[in-house]
Amino acid sequence: MSTQPQLDQIHHVAIPVSDIAASVAWYREQFHCDVAYQDATWALLKFANISLALVTSSQHPPHIALIHPDAAQFGPLTTHRDATRSIYIPDPDSNQVEVMDAASVRRY
Amino acid sequence: MSTQPQLDQIHHVAIPVSDIAASVAWYREQFHCDVAYQDATWALLKFANISLALVTSSQHPPHIALIHPDAAQFGPLTTHRDATRSIYIPDPDSNQVEVMDAASVRRY
Repeated sequence: MSTQPQLDQIHHVAIPVSDIAASVAWYREQFHCDVAYQDATWALLKFANISLALVTSSQHPPHIALIHPDAAQFGPLTTHRDATRSIYIPDPDSNQVEVMDAASVRRY
Repeated sequence: MSTQPQLDQIHHVAIPVSDIAASVAWYREQFHCDVAYQDATWALLKFANISLALVTSSQHPPHIALIHPDAAQFGPLTTHRDATRSIYIPDPDSNQVEVMDAASVRRY
């Protein structure tokens, strides 16, 4: 038995690539993953436990995204096209951390 | 029902930080995570579905690590101090991808 609070979940990780189509092809060739979304500026690959976003840095910042029960405590939330609500905060080294409000995330 | 092969799992993601202790404190203050390992050059934080490694770039390259049923097909494996066996391969943009052999990973 544990008295620890439940650990938070990391929803996705976004890494920078230069050519979305080429990178989607490479990851699909090397690994078993599904393409959940793809356009010219970013793609979302589903793995068993997490999604991997491939992003063009000029359009979308590389980041890690966590699901938090009360993301608004970090500041005003932005609503995205997929209806998720989140805020980006920098860690001590300016790595970008997207804090996604749990209520806006359909699937854990 | 799906005829898709099982999706691969991402074991951990390693992001660059400058001060391990300061970053561990920041992530623990902001989020619910456990410290699985920590020394002066890197730390491993456990989240619900994945681990987040904080690494000093001079000692450990930032990377994503996937579990693969036959990592040796990517090349010769290196055995690490924790007994995991893996190989690092670059994606098309030279993002480092660690392919960990499933048989060497104790916990999925």
